[in-house]
Amino acid sequence: MNHPFSFELVYQSKKSRARVGRIHTPHGIIETPNFVPVGTNGSLKAIDSAYTDQMDIQLMFCNTYHLMLHPGSDLVKKAGGLHTFMNRTRPLITDSGGFQVFSLMYGSLHQELKSKGTKQHDNAVLKINEEGVLFRSYRDGSPILLTPESSVQAQKDLGADIIIPLDELPPYHVDQKKLKASFDRTHRWEKRSLDEHMRNEQNQTMYAVIHGGVDQELRKKSCEILSNEPFGGFAIGGSLGKTHSEMFTMLTDLMPHLPTDRPNHLLGIGDLGSIEPAIKLGIDTLDSSHPTKCARHGMLFTSKGMIKILNAQYKEQFEPLDPTCSCYTCKHYTIAYLRHLFKAHELTAYTLASIHNVHFMMNLMANYRQSILDGNL
Amino acid sequence: MNHPFSFELVYQSKKSRARVGRIHTPHGIIETPNFVPVGTNGSLKAIDSAYTDQMDIQLMFCNTYHLMLHPGSDLVKKAGGLHTFMNRTRPLITDSGGFQVFSLMYGSLHQELKSKGTKQHDNAVLKINEEGVLFRSYRDGSPILLTPESSVQAQKDLGADIIIPLDELPPYHVDQKKLKASFDRTHRWEKRSLDEHMRNEQNQTMYAVIHGGVDQELRKKSCEILSNEPFGGFAIGGSLGKTHSEMFTMLTDLMPHLPTDRPNHLLGIGDLGSIEPAIKLGIDTLDSSHPTKCARHGMLFTSKGMIKILNAQYKEQFEPLDPTCSCYTCKHYTIAYLRHLFKAHELTAYTLASIHNVHFMMNLMANYRQSILDGNL
Repeated sequence: MNHPFSFELVYQSKKSRARVGRIHTPHGIIETPNFVPVGTNGSLKAIDSAYTDQMDIQLMFCNTYHLMLHPGSDLVKKAGGLHTFMNRTRPLITDSGGFQVFSLMYGSLHQELKSKGTKQHDNAVLKINEEGVLFRSYRDGSPILLTPESSVQAQKDLGADIIIPLDELPPYHVDQKKLKASFDRTHRWEKRSLDEHMRNEQNQTMYAVIHGGVDQELRKKSCEILSNEPFGGFAIGGSLGKTHSEMFTMLTDLMPHLPTDRPNHLLGIGDLGSIEPAIKLGIDTLDSSHPTKCARHGMLFTSKGMIKILNAQYKEQFEPLDPTCSCYTCKHYTIAYLRHLFKAHELTAYTLASIHNVHFMMNLMANYRQSILDGNL
Repeated sequence: MNHPFSFELVYQSKKSRARVGRIHTPHGIIETPNFVPVGTNGSLKAIDSAYTDQMDIQLMFCNTYHLMLHPGSDLVKKAGGLHTFMNRTRPLITDSGGFQVFSLMYGSLHQELKSKGTKQHDNAVLKINEEGVLFRSYRDGSPILLTPESSVQAQKDLGADIIIPLDELPPYHVDQKKLKASFDRTHRWEKRSLDEHMRNEQNQTMYAVIHGGVDQELRKKSCEILSNEPFGGFAIGGSLGKTHSEMFTMLTDLMPHLPTDRPNHLLGIGDLGSIEPAIKLGIDTLDSSHPTKCARHGMLFTSKGMIKILNAQYKEQFEPLDPTCSCYTCKHYTIAYLRHLFKAHELTAYTLASIHNVHFMMNLMANYRQSILDGNL
C-alpha cells in the first residue's frame, strides 16, 4: 500500500534549523512551519468549521478527552468520523486525552507551576497504575478507564489524520526518581499505543511524544527510544519548563536529536513571542488556543502590536483593526464598531475577533515560510 | 424633491385584507408582508451585519434606547450613521426609546401583565411630565431626559430609514381616566415628534404609533388623528392586549381604519402563530426578537414544527435540521452536530441556530407573499 502520509522537505535554511516542508495527509497538505488552532470540542471557538476551511486553516487540533465525554467517540464514529461530524475537509490532529486527565489531577499547567506541586483534591482522578488512568467523568460522575489501547481506540473512532499515544504527564515539581519512573512508564505506554495503532492503521499516522521534562539527558534518551520506532512524527510534550527561557534551552538541546525525515510538533505553545524562536529551532507545527482565547477577551493581534479593544482610546477609531489585513473582519468592520460589540456583549464580537486573530496567525506563518525560502530566517 | 419613500401596492387579496407591496426607501426595497428581525445594539444577535445582507433581511429593527446609552447616538453620527457604523447596506428602522424606558418602570410587558399593574421600584424612571421622561442610565447612573424632540434627534443621528415618534406606553392595568390622559399626551408627543422630524427630513420617514390599548373607540380615534398627519406609515403599538385573542379582536376592529396608501407595522409581534392571522388582517411588517431568542435557547423552526435540540431524541440525527431548508446551517451541519455544539456551550451553536431560524422566517414570509399573489390567502 502506498502510505498516505509523507513529509516532504521543501527547503532547509542555511542560517538556522528552520525549514519549509509539506506534510501530505489523506485530507490534504499541511505546509510547514504552521500554526494549529485548537477546536477542543470539534469546533474552533466562535468560528464554524466550513468557514475555517475557507480561512486556510491547514491543521486543526481537537481534544479526545472532551470528545470522549461528549458526544462520545462512538457517536462520532457513527456520524462517519470527526471530519464528517464537524464538516471539516482538511487535516485534523487529536491528542490522547492524557493531558486533560493529568490536568484534572494537578490543575492547569499554570496553576501547577504556581502551586509547587500540591495536588488538587477534586478526586477526579481515581487511580493511576501500569494499565492506565481511572478518572471520573465531569459530565455524569461515571468512572472511565483511559489506557493506551482505549485512547488509541477512541482516536480511531474519531479518525483524525494525526493521533497521539497516551503518555503520563509528570508534574513540573517532581523528584528525579519519580520523574524517571514516569518517564519509563510513558515510553511503555507509547509503545503499547503504537502497537494498538499498527494493528489497524486506518489512514492515520501517530506522532510519538518526546518526554523528559527539562532534563537534558532524559530528553535525549526519549528521542533515541522513540525515533527507533515507526512513529510518523514527533510531538514535544511533557513539562516544557517553567519559563520561556527554560523551554528554549531544552528545545535547543533536544531538536538536533530528532530525526529530520519526519515532521515534529510542539504541543500547546503558540504565543506570539515563542513562534519565531521555535521555528528557528526547526519546529514544524505548534498548537495553541491562545489566539482564539485572546480574541474572546478583546485582545487583537495587529502588525503594529496588540490592541486591547476595550481601551477608551479605540472608541472613535473608524478604521479597520489592521489596514494591511485582508480578513473578513477587517474588510467589513471598524475598530469602533468591534469595540461597541464587545461593550454590548454581542456574540458577534467573539466571532469577528476570533476570525481576525486566527487569520493573523495563518498569515504570520505564511510569511515565516516565505522568509525561510527567501533565506532570511 | 422626489420623495425617497413610497409604498407600492402590488396586489390586494380578494379573500382577506392581506396584501403584497413594496416599500421603497433610500436603502432599497422592502417587500411586504415581511418579518423584521431585531438587532437591538446595531447587531443581529450572533449574526454579523454583512452576512445579514446576504440573508435577504430587508428591514432590521434597532433600539434607540440601547444605542443612545452605548455607544451614544453622537458617536454613531460621527461614524457616518448607523448603516455605516454597523456596515448594513439595506433598510433600518429604529424606535423612539420610549418602550424601553417605560419597561424600566413597569418591568417587561410579560411581567407587567402578570403583576396586575404593580410598579417595579428600581427607580430607573425619575419623572414623567409633559416635557418628556427623565430616567437613569443603566450604564453609569447619569440622568437622561428623553423628550419627543431628543428622541427624534437621536434617531436622526442614527439615520435609520424609518423612525418612530416618542409615545407614552400606558400599562395594561390602568383605569379609563388615566388611559385617556396617557392617550392624549401620546398624541401630543407624536405631533411634536413629527414636527421635529419635518424640520429636517434627512432621507428618513416617520411612522406614527397607533395607541388606545384594547379600547376600540380610542384605537379608532388614534387612527383618525394620526392619519390626518403626514406620517409615512403607521405602527401599531401600546398595549396590544393580554392574550392573542384580545390582540386579534383589537386588530380586526382597527385595521379598516388605517389608510391603505401607506405601509403599516405591528410592533414587537413575531411568534409563528401570530404571523398568518396578522397578514390576513393586512399587516405589512412585524418585528420580533423571538426567532433569534428561540435560536439561542436551542428551539429551532422547521417545516415540520419546532425542534428542541437538547432533547435526547436528536442525539444521533445525522441529517440537517430541515431537508427542505437552503440555509448555511442546513447546507453544512447535521442536527446531531448542532446538538453537540449546544451541549458543549460552543458559541458557534448560537450563530448557526440563529442563521437557521432567521432564514426560516425570511423564507416563510416569501412564501406568504407568493401565496397572496396566487390568490390563496
